Amino acid sequence: MTEVGERGSAAGGRGSADLAPEAFVEYGKRLVEWIGEFLANPERYPVLARVKPGDIAASLPLSPPARGERLDAILADFETKILPGITHWNHPGFFAYFSISASAPGILGELLASALNVNAMLWRTSPAATELELRALDWLRQLLGLADDWHGHINDTASISTMLALAAAREAAGLDVRERGMAGRGDLPVLRVYCSEHAHSSVDKGAITLGIGHENVVHVAADGEFRMRPDLLREAIAADLARGMLPLAVVATVGTTSTTSIDPVREIAGVIREVAATGSGANPELRTSARPWLHIDGAYGGTAAVVPEMRGVLDGVDLADSFVVNPHKWLFTPIDCSALYVKRPEILKRAFSLVPEYLVTREAAPVENLMDYGVQLGRRFRALKLWMVIRAFGAEGLAERIRAHCALARTFAGWVEAARCWEVVAPVPFSTVCFRYAPEGVSERNLETINTRILDRVNDSGSVFLSHTKLNGRYVLRLAIGNIRTEERHVAQAWRLLREAAA
Amino acid sequence: MTEVGERGSAAGGRGSADLAPEAFVEYGKRLVEWIGEFLANPERYPVLARVKPGDIAASLPLSPPARGERLDAILADFETKILPGITHWNHPGFFAYFSISASAPGILGELLASALNVNAMLWRTSPAATELELRALDWLRQLLGLADDWHGHINDTASISTMLALAAAREAAGLDVRERGMAGRGDLPVLRVYCSEHAHSSVDKGAITLGIGHENVVHVAADGEFRMRPDLLREAIAADLARGMLPLAVVATVGTTSTTSIDPVREIAGVIREVAATGSGANPELRTSARPWLHIDGAYGGTAAVVPEMRGVLDGVDLADSFVVNPHKWLFTPIDCSALYVKRPEILKRAFSLVPEYLVTREAAPVENLMDYGVQLGRRFRALKLWMVIRAFGAEGLAERIRAHCALARTFAGWVEAARCWEVVAPVPFSTVCFRYAPEGVSERNLETINTRILDRVNDSGSVFLSHTKLNGRYVLRLAIGNIRTEERHVAQAWRLLREAAA
Repeated sequence: MTEVGERGSAAGGRGSADLAPEAFVEYGKRLVEWIGEFLANPERYPVLARVKPGDIAASLPLSPPARGERLDAILADFETKILPGITHWNHPGFFAYFSISASAPGILGELLASALNVNAMLWRTSPAATELELRALDWLRQLLGLADDWHGHINDTASISTMLALAAAREAAGLDVRERGMAGRGDLPVLRVYCSEHAHSSVDKGAITLGIGHENVVHVAADGEFRMRPDLLREAIAADLARGMLPLAVVATVGTTSTTSIDPVREIAGVIREVAATGSGANPELRTSARPWLHIDGAYGGTAAVVPEMRGVLDGVDLADSFVVNPHKWLFTPIDCSALYVKRPEILKRAFSLVPEYLVTREAAPVENLMDYGVQLGRRFRALKLWMVIRAFGAEGLAERIRAHCALARTFAGWVEAARCWEVVAPVPFSTVCFRYAPEGVSERNLETINTRILDRVNDSGSVFLSHTKLNGRYVLRLAIGNIRTEERHVAQAWRLLREAAA
Repeated sequence: MTEVGERGSAAGGRGSADLAPEAFVEYGKRLVEWIGEFLANPERYPVLARVKPGDIAASLPLSPPARGERLDAILADFETKILPGITHWNHPGFFAYFSISASAPGILGELLASALNVNAMLWRTSPAATELELRALDWLRQLLGLADDWHGHINDTASISTMLALAAAREAAGLDVRERGMAGRGDLPVLRVYCSEHAHSSVDKGAITLGIGHENVVHVAADGEFRMRPDLLREAIAADLARGMLPLAVVATVGTTSTTSIDPVREIAGVIREVAATGSGANPELRTSARPWLHIDGAYGGTAAVVPEMRGVLDGVDLADSFVVNPHKWLFTPIDCSALYVKRPEILKRAFSLVPEYLVTREAAPVENLMDYGVQLGRRFRALKLWMVIRAFGAEGLAERIRAHCALARTFAGWVEAARCWEVVAPVPFSTVCFRYAPEGVSERNLETINTRILDRVNDSGSVFLSHTKLNGRYVLRLAIGNIRTEERHVAQAWRLLREAAA
């Protein structure tokens, strides 16, 4: 980035003030131009950073500067020292994990939000931030075709959203955990949470954090298509009830992390209804009248319901108690933005609301103070970027992009299926393909070695980045499409590199 | 904002792509100019939003648009519909709660971070984000004059940082809570957490979330200057030990929310050492060898230690197990950015690390994967803005600004003290003043009514925003200085408005 004149002088020299606004404008425009170039040529940097552990740290001074430095110097260091260590999640060849993207409207939204620097903890501390959050999440609900009795608010991540849902489940059980805690009480049963063996690790982390315990997360086995088996869920719950344990919550996933499989939500809801009807009969000593809470993790897959012909992926979700979908995953909204919907917001509020005197406000009419729905008091104005993304693309524009991603994934899967020695190893309901190179007569162990090497070689190319998982002990490769700038040529490039690496 | 030509056409019309990069640049520059104006004239909007509950919502369509809209229209709505509902935290007359600010270098850092859109969950998913985070937090540690055996990482909020610290305390106690949870176990004592009666509500929320229970947060009474009394802490711990309860953690605060009082950290650490020496003797049945964990909440006040002559505010903090300070509060970094330091990172990791196969990576040398230190998997590149702020202002520049804020607070306190019928009701160790209008012979009840009215009138002015608290049942006003653009004239304006309102 080129130098700017005197107005770019160090902020440190200006007494007790901020950098001059004119300098902000000059540097801001330079950064906007730089980002414009970056978005126009997203492939000019290798997608996976090519540095060794410690390389970046070694290039940075061990101590902070005593005097303020010129932004020229700082931005030059950004380009020469930081950028080489960036793995480019915004690169169209990013196919690892779940591919995300910051769309232009989303970036502009973040820019505005950071300048306003609002803390939306209370309605009063920015009425627009609270009311826009509620409205934007209602828009998103409509885009997904969900019923109108959901209450949505934004969290940073699905990890937090799912933890809050489990905390609401704990509160709903009526065990007075909020006041009395769980340790040293003789009156509490062991609490159990059920999810598929393919559920995301955030379910485990949530249960660990809440003091439910990792061993009390029951990972129900999946069927041949990696979906939770409702019959085994029923058995697991019955066995736990017989042992005097309390089935607290079931987490079903729409789009599991490894294969994007879809748990049979409607059947799972049916199992829960059965438990409600007979559960207390099975063990009348359990001091709760609540049925297990049903939480749906649609952090990635839920977004697909913006495509009218894909609405079926959320079949049964309206029967659940809570639902999470992450606009920062597949809805072109910069990280972070996770939408948590609950049917009974009063339970989440009962679990978390706590208003010290210094946060008491008086309004002319009842208001929502969104700090009441979770752990965090500080809340960024995340609704702004989501609102801008939804408006800039519109329902049809969003659907078109998601539809295109799913089509690309099917195209890629078709190529793999048609190729000798390659196989697709899981259904492709969304935009992610699990596959591997599997020449006949090679042992599983050697297949893992071979596929690991293929992955390393492909990722070393700098043009694509894929990740892996294991399915029933088998090492498989994953290609996840989700970046707004990904086109067929990028997927074709990945396929070419994969075949070259295998050859 | 004025219109831009054809390139500003709706993103929705461009097939499966993002808004054109040229359009991003044009709109980005317009927003940068708008923000430049906003920063240059931060007083052009009323600091406290002048809308009634529901006003903003009523101005927004009930449903999302079917087709993508032009950014012109979206940004026009931002100005006409959203902005009137913004309470301006970036206004120099914002004196409520703890005043925060987004400095220009910080806003530029957020802009870059949102364009890169990195998820720093693993070292590999952006080596620079991880290594810069560790380095920037080591810089901050040095700025605060803390010892070099602290391990720092960034969380979104102090609420999460404190919750993680309490979770680490639970893990350190060796009760196998991670695996077995806490419910339905006969072998666990009741767990207790101690803090001052003036500690932040995040301590309570953390204990609620972790399943420790709200009633097990012991709010130790404070002395006449609102500081936790170590003698009463000692008594409370001894009483709990005698009842077979386990003192898990003590949270001391450097800069409490109401009055910014400083708990006597060194003496509190001494009480904990005594417990370690004699505690197990008091009740050998408690199955733990650990002493209570000492966590320091310096979310606001900790920052003052960047001023060399104020280092003493962190006296004793190096004896603690964990420490939180929020650069997004008083270090000119846009929200959110909370720094959590721990002495034994391996304990935090033991509490939270969980690596499913799809997140397993192989590196040439050991690396830090920052997802291991907390609940959240998704992690924004928050270190970038902090690094830019520290470099742009430098150690001296930051100290100069904090020093100026503290001097302004003393100036204001001096005015209050010198005025008839007004009183300063708590010491002013930082940049926050608690005070009230207290003409002689008026009952407490009437004083509350009078001061509430004064507060309402002053806040209705649109030029300043103050908040309140209660101290020993007395309603008091708070003026908190923390915005980088606040000058003496803004504080003087607040004082003028207060006196006018009282008259």
